[in-house]
Amino acid sequence: MRWNHGSLELLDQTKLPTTIEYIQCDNYQIVAEAIKKLEVRGAPAIGAAAAFGYVLGAKQFQSLELKNFISRLEHVSEELRATRPTAVNLFWALDRMDNLLRQHLQKKSSMKEIIFSLEEEAIRIADEDKKVNCALSKYGAELFKSPMNFLTHCNAGALATVDMGTALGVIRQTYADGHVKRVFADETRPLLQGARLTAFELTQDNIPVTLISDNMAGWVMKNKMVDAVIVGADRIAANGDVANKIGTYSVAVLAKEHHIPFYVAAPSSTFDFSLDNGEQIPIEERNKNEVTHVLGTQIAPLEVDVFNPAFDVTPHALIAGIITEYGVLKEDYKKSIQELKQKLEK
Amino acid sequence: MRWNHGSLELLDQTKLPTTIEYIQCDNYQIVAEAIKKLEVRGAPAIGAAAAFGYVLGAKQFQSLELKNFISRLEHVSEELRATRPTAVNLFWALDRMDNLLRQHLQKKSSMKEIIFSLEEEAIRIADEDKKVNCALSKYGAELFKSPMNFLTHCNAGALATVDMGTALGVIRQTYADGHVKRVFADETRPLLQGARLTAFELTQDNIPVTLISDNMAGWVMKNKMVDAVIVGADRIAANGDVANKIGTYSVAVLAKEHHIPFYVAAPSSTFDFSLDNGEQIPIEERNKNEVTHVLGTQIAPLEVDVFNPAFDVTPHALIAGIITEYGVLKEDYKKSIQELKQKLEK
Repeated sequence: MRWNHGSLELLDQTKLPTTIEYIQCDNYQIVAEAIKKLEVRGAPAIGAAAAFGYVLGAKQFQSLELKNFISRLEHVSEELRATRPTAVNLFWALDRMDNLLRQHLQKKSSMKEIIFSLEEEAIRIADEDKKVNCALSKYGAELFKSPMNFLTHCNAGALATVDMGTALGVIRQTYADGHVKRVFADETRPLLQGARLTAFELTQDNIPVTLISDNMAGWVMKNKMVDAVIVGADRIAANGDVANKIGTYSVAVLAKEHHIPFYVAAPSSTFDFSLDNGEQIPIEERNKNEVTHVLGTQIAPLEVDVFNPAFDVTPHALIAGIITEYGVLKEDYKKSIQELKQKLEK
Repeated sequence: MRWNHGSLELLDQTKLPTTIEYIQCDNYQIVAEAIKKLEVRGAPAIGAAAAFGYVLGAKQFQSLELKNFISRLEHVSEELRATRPTAVNLFWALDRMDNLLRQHLQKKSSMKEIIFSLEEEAIRIADEDKKVNCALSKYGAELFKSPMNFLTHCNAGALATVDMGTALGVIRQTYADGHVKRVFADETRPLLQGARLTAFELTQDNIPVTLISDNMAGWVMKNKMVDAVIVGADRIAANGDVANKIGTYSVAVLAKEHHIPFYVAAPSSTFDFSLDNGEQIPIEERNKNEVTHVLGTQIAPLEVDVFNPAFDVTPHALIAGIITEYGVLKEDYKKSIQELKQKLEK
């Protein structure tokens, strides 16, 4: 993700690993489309991309009168919010932009000041994500002091964030510390982020990675090939329940059965303190074509019914720890997450 | 699977559901290739196809002297046995053919008598499979007396057997009895037998079926959408441990977590009484391309390592019952399987 002062460049993740292609976003509509189509994906990356989309929207309407500018910008914010329902980082980043706009209106700033300040804020969101990735990766790596075999699901890597990743950030740091033997990557149907993105990132970094179909995770665990599971998150409720890519819940149950610790790595922006528990997290259902086809190839009768939730919720009881940039949260999650909230409010 | 007196016609299962194409097997080599390439698959179907392959081999060498004929036929049997290691029905069917040949040699039968008798035996194996499917389907359907939502993995249907199927046979009979609400079909990566074959069979029969990615099974169970799981088997050890398509073990663990009964449907020919437990079952590992590609489309970096076991083993403790043509076996499996063995020896 590159910001060139007026244009956002996104690596098209739907084309990886066979094609490396960038999308030039010169207006907010292209950003919204890119989020919807998963050309950019991963909770922290969506947040940063949306913030840049907000800035593009502001630039598009800067020739209007302030009143009209603001009403158009409110619409931009709404449109960006409507792209995907589950990842809370999207709303978190847009809330930051909206709040900043509101402050400037109270101060009666000029349009130029407003746009300059919004751009600064979007850059700050992206920069903070880098620092946050780095900090949480270090906290995570401290958990693993001997050579480990990891299993991960979906992609919570550089491609899902602005920098080194959350779950893969921890794995990268642990590898740098000399404590990674191998990473098993679930392919992560239907959109294959594990096969296309995680396997790609880790082979690029020369970290030993073994690709498996999702349904092999249990057998790999049964054969004692996995010492720890680590995944990212799209939204975390106040009790520690975690929404993440569909299949995460199954992995967590399998890890429990095999006494393998299951960790979540996520920045504090992933927490939704307003939700008591995971049952309140809205789960996006996506098009049936994603299940009946694989990268355009038909694999099933077209008339078959399909269930295609993009996420599931893992109850906090299955989670050994939530790795954040402020340290590793553990049970009692209600308490530790409340403490995190207080830290953030300071 | 159709036997036309000297030629075996197989529906090419690798091409379904988009293309319906038959393979004409005029010699045993084509049958062996078809088994290896999974053009014919499913434990009972493999057994019957191998028996017909044996007959084709006998016909190919009938012009030789008896001594040479026998040595060539031994080679035919070995080649057919070497196609796939896990499904025991293959060896069971070929053992029947070998034993019959041996009896004829003792009786000093003529070559013509031998070939006629081998053909009769292969037809008998196929016919028995139909009766066996029917009997076990009825025993299975008796387990379900109220409307049920099922989940199944892979394809243990008409395409995996000679007739109505084992797991899908039970589902078909239960549906005929009015007790099926819906069937969730795991797509079953890497070769997608669930998406391609089970979804195809059930939509053809107008049985309500919902296709899901394998990693959705846990979430579907968590949402109380499944009342029972039923799968087929490729080999069952004397203690009730069951080898079946990779991913079956994960489904069994998930079913346990959600207190959902997990059933196996398999003919008695699937039991390997010589193995004390599932750890002794050889597990076929297949080509890495099956995981890095989907129906010819590349989905991962080609240089990535892959683990691709075709089967896994579900411990008997996770199994609520094994549905056979002699009734439903339950714990203590060691005892109930020993009783089945004695029944078969009579």
